Amino acid sequence: MPTVKVEMFSGRTPQQKRDLVRLVTDAVAESLSVDPAGVRVQIVETERHHSAVGGVLRSDAAGEAVPFGTP
Amino acid sequence: MPTVKVEMFSGRTPQQKRDLVRLVTDAVAESLSVDPAGVRVQIVETERHHSAVGGVLRSDAAGEAVPFGTP
Amino acid sequence: MPTVKVEMFSGRTPQQKRDLVRLVTDAVAESLSVDPAGVRVQIVETERHHSAVGGVLRSDAAGEAVPFGTP
Amino acid sequence: MPTVKVEMFSGRTPQQKRDLVRLVTDAVAESLSVDPAGVRVQIVETERHHSAVGGVLRSDAAGEAVPFGTP
Amino acid sequence: MPTVKVEMFSGRTPQQKRDLVRLVTDAVAESLSVDPAGVRVQIVETERHHSAVGGVLRSDAAGEAVPFGTP
Amino acid sequence: MPTVKVEMFSGRTPQQKRDLVRLVTDAVAESLSVDPAGVRVQIVETERHHSAVGGVLRSDAAGEAVPFGTP
Repeated sequence: MPTVKVEMFSGRTPQQKRDLVRLVTDAVAESLSVDPAGVRVQIVETERHHSAVGGVLRSDAAGEAVPFGTP
Repeated sequence: MPTVKVEMFSGRTPQQKRDLVRLVTDAVAESLSVDPAGVRVQIVETERHHSAVGGVLRSDAAGEAVPFGTP
Repeated sequence: MPTVKVEMFSGRTPQQKRDLVRLVTDAVAESLSVDPAGVRVQIVETERHHSAVGGVLRSDAAGEAVPFGTP
Repeated sequence: MPTVKVEMFSGRTPQQKRDLVRLVTDAVAESLSVDPAGVRVQIVETERHHSAVGGVLRSDAAGEAVPFGTP
Repeated sequence: MPTVKVEMFSGRTPQQKRDLVRLVTDAVAESLSVDPAGVRVQIVETERHHSAVGGVLRSDAAGEAVPFGTP
Repeated sequence: MPTVKVEMFSGRTPQQKRDLVRLVTDAVAESLSVDPAGVRVQIVETERHHSAVGGVLRSDAAGEAVPFGTP
């Protein structure tokens, strides 16, 4: 049953994503003593122009343009 | 109030999506005895290269390439 | 893969919950032509004193007391 | 800690998104007496052809075409 | 449509929750130029012993006991 | 930024929860080459009588009673 959702900024490589789901699955299986085959991991990518801390878009804080109309 | 979120792989047809929201709404309304007009359904599409079971990306398990940099 | 999350107010009977997950699973399987065995449904209960429309807690709109300190 | 997720239809301007995260952060900080620097806001955009009320896709209700195969 | 989910630690008073949903609704309505009546806010309470930063439970970081078996 | 949400059945010990957040944080930091201090983990507990596979509540599949009215 354990289902893991990882929210992160887009731009990672396929290999980073492979390593992420493998290592997170191992971490959950080890700590909870469950079968890795029952662990699900979902990657949810987000953008800096949709994420804010302290009321400021991260894209603004990083001096990046905020694309208009793109997801 | 009932709000339903359906997470599924992308690629379904518009008609499948129409049938999905209609049938799910009917199922919720019937089982909970609520007015269908108060039932909300949200479709959230995901990709096989962002979903893993047992530590392996589903795209890898299916022998699909993992696109780099695309959402 | 389809995973369904149903957010609803607490207070339903066990039988309503059984009917809900069965009928929703059938609705998803039929509309998307997938095996019911691969459909997961998660019930997430919430309270009226944690839910608002138009800036007003639903418990207030219904004249209910808002419990303090209880989940 | 307060983390706020705002689900809304796509199509807003960058300036609307800036105003949204700023004003929501202020609202949370004021009502909960917390430091705005600790408030996180996440914008999650969705599409009318993935959202339904009363069993009908909002795009259908608005007479819009339902794109096939696009996110 | 805008639906706002506010994740926060439990323990706030009913009045803080009332102020929160009212001020957040106003912030969304003003920034997105939408009718407040169409804005939904959902409060999701969590506990320090279920929340971690840097690999450490917040309850541990605050020297609080971690209750066993309670939600 | 990476925020991890782990959905799991209730009943784990405080030590299992400590190990879980520590090991998951390490896994994310290692695979994505990010500072562990910036990784957040949220545990979300659920119950077998609110979770279904193949249209059957897990509590029913396990022969457990479905509590009425309790969260």
